Amino acid sequence: MRNLLLTIRFCGTAYHGFQVQKNALAVADAFQSVLRKVLKESPQIKGCSRTDTGVHANMFCISFQTEKQIPCDGLLWALNNNLPDDIGVISCREVPLDFHARYSCIGKRYLYQVYNAPFRDPFLDKRALLYQHPIDEKYLNEAAKYFLGTHDFATFCRADSTVEDTVRTIYDFHVTRQGPMVYFSVTGDGFLYNMVRILVGTLLAVSAGKIAPSEIPDIIASGNRERAGITVPPYGLYLDYVFYPPEDPRAGGEFSQEEMKL
Amino acid sequence: MRNLLLTIRFCGTAYHGFQVQKNALAVADAFQSVLRKVLKESPQIKGCSRTDTGVHANMFCISFQTEKQIPCDGLLWALNNNLPDDIGVISCREVPLDFHARYSCIGKRYLYQVYNAPFRDPFLDKRALLYQHPIDEKYLNEAAKYFLGTHDFATFCRADSTVEDTVRTIYDFHVTRQGPMVYFSVTGDGFLYNMVRILVGTLLAVSAGKIAPSEIPDIIASGNRERAGITVPPYGLYLDYVFYPPEDPRAGGEFSQEEMKL
Repeated sequence: MRNLLLTIRFCGTAYHGFQVQKNALAVADAFQSVLRKVLKESPQIKGCSRTDTGVHANMFCISFQTEKQIPCDGLLWALNNNLPDDIGVISCREVPLDFHARYSCIGKRYLYQVYNAPFRDPFLDKRALLYQHPIDEKYLNEAAKYFLGTHDFATFCRADSTVEDTVRTIYDFHVTRQGPMVYFSVTGDGFLYNMVRILVGTLLAVSAGKIAPSEIPDIIASGNRERAGITVPPYGLYLDYVFYPPEDPRAGGEFSQEEMKL
Repeated sequence: MRNLLLTIRFCGTAYHGFQVQKNALAVADAFQSVLRKVLKESPQIKGCSRTDTGVHANMFCISFQTEKQIPCDGLLWALNNNLPDDIGVISCREVPLDFHARYSCIGKRYLYQVYNAPFRDPFLDKRALLYQHPIDEKYLNEAAKYFLGTHDFATFCRADSTVEDTVRTIYDFHVTRQGPMVYFSVTGDGFLYNMVRILVGTLLAVSAGKIAPSEIPDIIASGNRERAGITVPPYGLYLDYVFYPPEDPRAGGEFSQEEMKL
């Protein structure tokens, strides 16, 4: 038995998230049908994360076990030749049998893209949030630093979530700008349901003057979802990096040249 | 009577080109229905160019006459609020009554985007051509310079075109690279049907070693469509800039800050 790890990217516009759902097309459906075609078997695939409808991934990981001896390079080509054009496989490699795309993951980085301009860019339709009021990224970085460290993030979790342990650790959270594009980047050991979208919504509430940066510790401590900002739309959100040992998410991380295969 | 000039951008993926067609959605249809709603009249709109199905525009111009006294700024907001998200209006201004988006145009610049990598980027689906063999842009620039100047471009026109005058002037044609993205940029006084896509296909034939740069003058002179390269797919093509007097297309041109309204 071999255990394979695929690193993929996908534009999520056409999908109802990664995980298989009833009556809705998911990224995992596309994968399972192509694996069935290429491997002539139907392995159970494990994704590194659930994602919401319309959320994108610059990097997403899938692991699955197979008896087939197809070489990793051959599988990479076969998958890319058979998958829909809005999903791409970046790398394929063999990993130890106890590796699991989700349970072995020690951290994730998310990116939220905001287009900060008076009018939309038609090429960013469903790929970035249009925000028409000025954003001072330096001021937002003052607010973002209050989220760093280990906290109970119940305030920043969708109200109907049933998860019991709402303590998470944020290693990095910062806002940068390139022209009209404003990027919210957050790295942590894990995230609650809608947590990244609520964190970004809260920083936009800071931008709008509704919340002062110094109020954030109190808002975190309150556990009251209503004191945080709105849940910004899913289409600006990108799973950006997935960390596995020995990489240390506290030190950041980037695609290696080898992984990008460019 | 007022004559208005709109500068727009659109992602062409969902449209059968700009011009109204039977039984197919065109960018002009979207505009006409929104103008009807906003102005309560149906002006005849003139586009700067026809575009093929799936072709995009970083800049496209529309002119139309109206009796309505709505201010340009108000019309800009109203159009952006009512148009589909894959079309955006950048600017609106009043122009002399004899201005015509197509007939007043003295030049155009097109951009063709090639993603030069072993595997596709899912975010470039329908926005760039994937080309998996190495491209040496310096070598292609040697070939591109043979196209400069005034020539009969019958070789580079779709074979069934009925246009009589196939003489055009190319002011600039060059290839640049940013990482895996290779950009073909061509500026001229006008272009024949499919001409830009055949020019790019011919440079890709040069890249593949099928045509030597020094053969190009002879290929131009032959008037034989079969000696040029293939017509590359429409989805990598962007109308990039539209020149009107007093701008001189021979000197290049860029959006002014005022036009971009950023």
